[in-house]
Amino acid sequence: MLFDCPLPMSVATQPDLAEYCRSAARRAKLAAAELALLRGDQKNAWLNQSAASLRIQTSALLAANAADIATAPGFGLTSAQIDRLRLTKDRIEDIALGLEQVANLPDPVGEIIESSIRPNGLEVLKTRVPLGVVFFIYESRPNVTADAAAICVKSGNAVILRGGKEAANSSAAIVDILRETAADHGIPADALHLVETPDRAAVGHFLALPEFIDVAIPRGGESLIRRVVAEARMPVIKHFTGNCHVYVDSSADLDMAERITVNSKCQRLGVCNACESLLVHAAVADAFLPRIGSALAERGIEMRADERSRPRLLVPGVKLATDEDYVAEFLGPIISIKTVDSLAEAIDHINHFGSQHTDAIITQDLAAARQFTARVDSSAVMVNASTRFNDGFEFGLGAEIGISTDKFHARGPCGLKELTTYKYVVFGEGQIKE
Amino acid sequence: MLFDCPLPMSVATQPDLAEYCRSAARRAKLAAAELALLRGDQKNAWLNQSAASLRIQTSALLAANAADIATAPGFGLTSAQIDRLRLTKDRIEDIALGLEQVANLPDPVGEIIESSIRPNGLEVLKTRVPLGVVFFIYESRPNVTADAAAICVKSGNAVILRGGKEAANSSAAIVDILRETAADHGIPADALHLVETPDRAAVGHFLALPEFIDVAIPRGGESLIRRVVAEARMPVIKHFTGNCHVYVDSSADLDMAERITVNSKCQRLGVCNACESLLVHAAVADAFLPRIGSALAERGIEMRADERSRPRLLVPGVKLATDEDYVAEFLGPIISIKTVDSLAEAIDHINHFGSQHTDAIITQDLAAARQFTARVDSSAVMVNASTRFNDGFEFGLGAEIGISTDKFHARGPCGLKELTTYKYVVFGEGQIKE
Repeated sequence: MLFDCPLPMSVATQPDLAEYCRSAARRAKLAAAELALLRGDQKNAWLNQSAASLRIQTSALLAANAADIATAPGFGLTSAQIDRLRLTKDRIEDIALGLEQVANLPDPVGEIIESSIRPNGLEVLKTRVPLGVVFFIYESRPNVTADAAAICVKSGNAVILRGGKEAANSSAAIVDILRETAADHGIPADALHLVETPDRAAVGHFLALPEFIDVAIPRGGESLIRRVVAEARMPVIKHFTGNCHVYVDSSADLDMAERITVNSKCQRLGVCNACESLLVHAAVADAFLPRIGSALAERGIEMRADERSRPRLLVPGVKLATDEDYVAEFLGPIISIKTVDSLAEAIDHINHFGSQHTDAIITQDLAAARQFTARVDSSAVMVNASTRFNDGFEFGLGAEIGISTDKFHARGPCGLKELTTYKYVVFGEGQIKE
Repeated sequence: MLFDCPLPMSVATQPDLAEYCRSAARRAKLAAAELALLRGDQKNAWLNQSAASLRIQTSALLAANAADIATAPGFGLTSAQIDRLRLTKDRIEDIALGLEQVANLPDPVGEIIESSIRPNGLEVLKTRVPLGVVFFIYESRPNVTADAAAICVKSGNAVILRGGKEAANSSAAIVDILRETAADHGIPADALHLVETPDRAAVGHFLALPEFIDVAIPRGGESLIRRVVAEARMPVIKHFTGNCHVYVDSSADLDMAERITVNSKCQRLGVCNACESLLVHAAVADAFLPRIGSALAERGIEMRADERSRPRLLVPGVKLATDEDYVAEFLGPIISIKTVDSLAEAIDHINHFGSQHTDAIITQDLAAARQFTARVDSSAVMVNASTRFNDGFEFGLGAEIGISTDKFHARGPCGLKELTTYKYVVFGEGQIKE
């Protein structure tokens, strides 16, 4: 073992739970070795049959979900959260369609990424292989259980699913169906494991097993992600904060700038690729700020602006923005606004206060677009398009398990390929090194 | 900050050293932002001029190296280690040639890795960008200082170099030359930083700065790597143990098997891709073991074999192999040997005892080759070729900073591309999300 930090006490004192986690992880690792060799048509047939089974078992799923909905107020869920937790016939159909979409995606496993024949005749193939075992930790919505299982298994990985306790019954019902159909298509049952104990210490146990788990993917609030990063002894793909910017350049088409700002901020609040901060070049501040002030106010967005922007918004009661506002991921109906004197100032502001997630420039100027895309250090940099487009479906990945805010291994939307690695396969005819 | 573990006491109590490290890392991060935008011809001109300067300043380099050689016995270095530390006119020429080779490699930065035009007209470009700041921790040989600096800067990264104290004068002389020539070609001086303090606590400080350092790369003994993994708060590319296998299948050409086994074991002892363990199919044990026993004994290799192989080697005094021997990376004139009953047993043995580095099969059988390459979970799997070929030069990467034994981000030889990540650049004409 490479890692010697002591376990937190709460984990170290529960031998049964530790053994349960260790056994599940070990079996997942064995399943992953089989899964890595499965043919694409087996995985696709499993996905399609699972979709059919979900449709057939709609009433059982609704019953399981009703149990979750009944206990939800006891967990302190808001009505918006309860709505996200709720399954309906239509939502089950969407889940089934999601599985069928993943079945239709090309199989990433076995792709020859690069190859060369070396001067000595060695044939060097860089081939795509699964990572192994994914530990996925997520909150609430039951559809995420099905999506994550589909993406992981299609990319040849076993998955240990740790969903929110609020959705425990719904997730268990979904995973039961996915495991039932697995056997018909050569998918080992241990390729899919739902952690059923509500004990939070289980997460700590799994995070301490790098010999079995190849990557941890937390998706949820900041405290969950901080905990996983602090405890994980394996690599983590983080889906962290999205403090996304729209910068309206001096040469922007102001109609487009308004349309994109409103879409980036308001099309859906509470998502990681929503705009949280608007930067406006001083040259267009007089023309743009009044109209965007009115457009955002109409949609109930609270504005927090710097001294220069405030009076130009022509909205009463706009608060002065603080540095905390410029850093904040509001995930709600609030936006920070600042007037900048130059493109360079906008770029510096974004690189300083931003979260390296998604940032957009609205401009007609080629040099400005090139400067912005080269210098802004974010997973996606948009020119004349809404920040809301940074996701796996919009980028054509077909599915996603999250949007990485890291630079290492995977950056931006994580689809099937981002759950793979590679191995060099080398063919010779007896070559030795001179 | 995401990471809350307390610093080791030795680090926490040295404010001046902490400030020195923090300042160096912060300046490297600023330099990296400039470096990411440099044109390839600037980086190449710098490499070529540095090569010329190294040649011109040969006597100064030899004088600096003489100071290291003089103090080497005081550090307890063996004569073999002192030899590796020594610079000569020829070795300086090799270092200069190495820089020129890196100059001749294609620039990885800015490559469009994938692109698509989405149905809504968005143009999505996945573009290659540098990781940022590399913290490279390594031992002894002065040529590594120049190689690492060249690879990091060519791939657009700033680098903080922490070499062994044994080579302190030689490394400082090399870095001085590289920094002098940097200014002439727009390379920021802070792009290259040699950590000059011998205080080992400096490593801990740098490893605690994920806000400035994007990846840590330790290259050296197991204890160094364990320490870096335990302390690093940023991703680590590990160059860990190489317990490499040669498996001689029942259908092997035994001449080839002998040639490749001898080359894999003996061509160079003490390297990570040398063979440490030989597996022989029972069907060819009687024919193969006596000849390989004789070939290895002739070359002074100590054999440790299982009960079945021992008598067949026809070498007196062969010790019985233990599980420790099967796990060991000997890095010297020792090999473990085992007779197996099947290809499956060989694969299981390798996946169980191996280190996921490099493993070879010698076979004439297509199905066996396909099984072996599919099931052996190592960075490189060789068919009828020496394990010694797993390196960046042999695979055509042109240069390498190490061989990763991880699966995440980079696996196997790490060249220029493995020091990069990507960013999505998206061009639209006002698209908003419906």
